[in-house]
Amino acid sequence: MKSLPTLLGGIEAGGTKFNCALGVAPDQILERASFATTTPADTLEAVHRFFQHAQTRHGTLSALGIACFGPVDLDPSSPTYGFITNTPKAHWSNTDILGGLTDRLGVPAAFDTDVNGSALGEGTLGAARGLDDYLYVTIGTGIGAGVVANGRPIKGAMHPEVGHLLVPRDAERDPFPGACPFHGDCIEGLAAGPALEKRWGQKAETFSPDHPAWELQAEYLATLCWNLTVTYSPQRIILGGGVMGQAHLFPRIHEHFQRIRQGYPCGRAASTAHTYIVPPGLAGRSGEAGALLMARAALPASHTASAAM
Amino acid sequence: MKSLPTLLGGIEAGGTKFNCALGVAPDQILERASFATTTPADTLEAVHRFFQHAQTRHGTLSALGIACFGPVDLDPSSPTYGFITNTPKAHWSNTDILGGLTDRLGVPAAFDTDVNGSALGEGTLGAARGLDDYLYVTIGTGIGAGVVANGRPIKGAMHPEVGHLLVPRDAERDPFPGACPFHGDCIEGLAAGPALEKRWGQKAETFSPDHPAWELQAEYLATLCWNLTVTYSPQRIILGGGVMGQAHLFPRIHEHFQRIRQGYPCGRAASTAHTYIVPPGLAGRSGEAGALLMARAALPASHTASAAM
Repeated sequence: MKSLPTLLGGIEAGGTKFNCALGVAPDQILERASFATTTPADTLEAVHRFFQHAQTRHGTLSALGIACFGPVDLDPSSPTYGFITNTPKAHWSNTDILGGLTDRLGVPAAFDTDVNGSALGEGTLGAARGLDDYLYVTIGTGIGAGVVANGRPIKGAMHPEVGHLLVPRDAERDPFPGACPFHGDCIEGLAAGPALEKRWGQKAETFSPDHPAWELQAEYLATLCWNLTVTYSPQRIILGGGVMGQAHLFPRIHEHFQRIRQGYPCGRAASTAHTYIVPPGLAGRSGEAGALLMARAALPASHTASAAM
Repeated sequence: MKSLPTLLGGIEAGGTKFNCALGVAPDQILERASFATTTPADTLEAVHRFFQHAQTRHGTLSALGIACFGPVDLDPSSPTYGFITNTPKAHWSNTDILGGLTDRLGVPAAFDTDVNGSALGEGTLGAARGLDDYLYVTIGTGIGAGVVANGRPIKGAMHPEVGHLLVPRDAERDPFPGACPFHGDCIEGLAAGPALEKRWGQKAETFSPDHPAWELQAEYLATLCWNLTVTYSPQRIILGGGVMGQAHLFPRIHEHFQRIRQGYPCGRAASTAHTYIVPPGLAGRSGEAGALLMARAALPASHTASAAM
């Protein structure tokens, strides 16, 4: 008698959209859907309905992985574990994401940051395979990083929030005071998508590759990569997220990174910028893959043998 | 028959002086000495002679722990493992510290950064006891950090070098361009001891507590603590090193840290600055304690039962 395959659900809960997938493995997706991040009630209802309908077609879900935008509470002993806490994203502060989804789907679930999910996907199947010390950084609606050190994601007291790193800004070259509601010109306030739009008065995806925005952007992202290098000493930095769809940014970032480094020794990896600062190996699927891998890790012990991927 | 106690040697190899200790445990030191960091030949000779003489009085050394200023090579598979690599400190680039000491003393040895040594000491016996995620930061001749995440020190491709973090500088308030030979106004170039001396034209230890240097210094150190908070999300940050002998800096750093944070959630620990950013629990002995604990970990298996501390 052949047993049915174990079904996994993955949710990449982003500030712009929630990507949902139901599958047997990261490379065996049976169904996908994407919902705009509007209000918690509407968005979570859409996600719930997707999985309910998908189950009628493919069978019962065994576990869920939720990789969520933040800041989130990752402390299982906290009364607000699984919540988005104090976010600048309207409507979403103090939202119980984990409870809101598992209460109704009734399956075991793993919960982590969106960037830790993407880092897991890239470390298992993408551009960081075989590495113990690497970062997945997203440059999109916000800036954040999933950090793996000694083979494990760093969480600490909360989780890293590298978007709020303070970096130099030359007010003569860049008089824009920054868009972060907390800190003004932290790196997220200077270089996330909304900052680009606010500084230049139009959406970043409409700029041509020779728009002056990109040279400044490359310099800020090289400064970010430098600060992440001297803090974590990673073997590789993966830059993903909407803004990094501009592939021409990479060679410019490499150039600025080497200029900033000034020959300072950072280990062999960082001395070759083009293999050190790289795009994701899974293109837009790092988060989906990570969420499904998280779901697999949340399976009850009785399932794990049949769900080996 | 009572066996003799296992003797451990600890070396805190700093950019200003090498502190050496021979003892049975971090709280049972039998002999100590300190030697100025002049040239490798002279300084290593003085260290070697200290341990040779101490052994004639107390018995044979069983293991050595070396916590060394950097940048150092921590990769055991590298041909330059145990070397100081490319340091701005005159005479010390490409120096084989580990080989230079163990070749002559003939004992097993552990080698790590000075700040990882201090972090180990503070985590075992000092201000970070019981914590899995914390930092020991030194503000002295240079700026560096020993970072413990998930209970283990972060090494990565090389080791963190947080002294070279790039931070904002308001050129109107602080026209000093920084003293780092690599990056000018990185945090080490702005706030380490030599930067203070160069900016104000006199040694920092001669400033009165109301000298304007300290307010600026507190602001830079609060910025450093903020950047370390959003990267590592630690439960505690310990600030040690010569410059932090100025205890009046702590309340000023706490105040600037809370102003920079702007209420951004960083976990419960960081919301109470005065228990989050703290002086070392072991005063000037964090590095010595750490080096002896490293020595204990380097003991051959046959010794470890008798050396339990």
